Amino acid sequence: MKIEHIGIAVKDLNLSNDIFERLLGKSMYKQEAVESEGVKTSFFSVGESKIELVGSEKKESAIEKFLEKNREGIHHIAFGVDNLEKEIERLKNEGFIFINETPKLGADNKRIVFLHPKTTNGVLVELCEEVK
Amino acid sequence: MKIEHIGIAVKDLNLSNDIFERLLGKSMYKQEAVESEGVKTSFFSVGESKIELVGSEKKESAIEKFLEKNREGIHHIAFGVDNLEKEIERLKNEGFIFINETPKLGADNKRIVFLHPKTTNGVLVELCEEVK
Repeated sequence: MKIEHIGIAVKDLNLSNDIFERLLGKSMYKQEAVESEGVKTSFFSVGESKIELVGSEKKESAIEKFLEKNREGIHHIAFGVDNLEKEIERLKNEGFIFINETPKLGADNKRIVFLHPKTTNGVLVELCEEVK
Repeated sequence: MKIEHIGIAVKDLNLSNDIFERLLGKSMYKQEAVESEGVKTSFFSVGESKIELVGSEKKESAIEKFLEKNREGIHHIAFGVDNLEKEIERLKNEGFIFINETPKLGADNKRIVFLHPKTTNGVLVELCEEVK
């Protein structure tokens, strides 16, 4: 397991791209729309992990709802795992609750699930596995 | 640069240690009080990064103030750098504002500074360098 990425909710993706380029001292390596989530994302590589900026592209997207209640900032942590189904099974047995138990296709060529923050200390946790 | 750790503010460190042990499938490798900050921390290793749980040990600590205004959850991202002074200088030239420009001693044998979230898209960013 590793920290695959940290997701940051932003209001204005172009503005935030500029901020993070200056902060990290490097350019993003990819921008990608995720239709199923109604968001647009930018990726910066940092060591073995990534920073994923996430902006809303659609009314009622999860990010838009998040930004109605919260300030811009860290939205989720994604842990990269080798075997998503095995990890889901392990965590279900440990009593964790999932937002979606059936993996869906996320950004950056990943199959993803989210755990509910109520069982993870208020932290929105994503698990992701690279699509082979 | 790498993600050195993600700091998570928690109300009850013992309870959260148990949650993260089950979530990550491993035990914390260290618990440490940071007197200067009035906090107690637990560390879990995840790939090249760490998860740092931070609980308040003192009235008026930064974590206690955070938890008065916010729910438990992600508190900061720490980027590990090789040369802290050089990175501070670079970021000052880029217009970033620091909470403390003079490095102080943090947990886990690190010299640390914090950038103000108002210039980093609402994200509390720590820079840290291993004390040699």
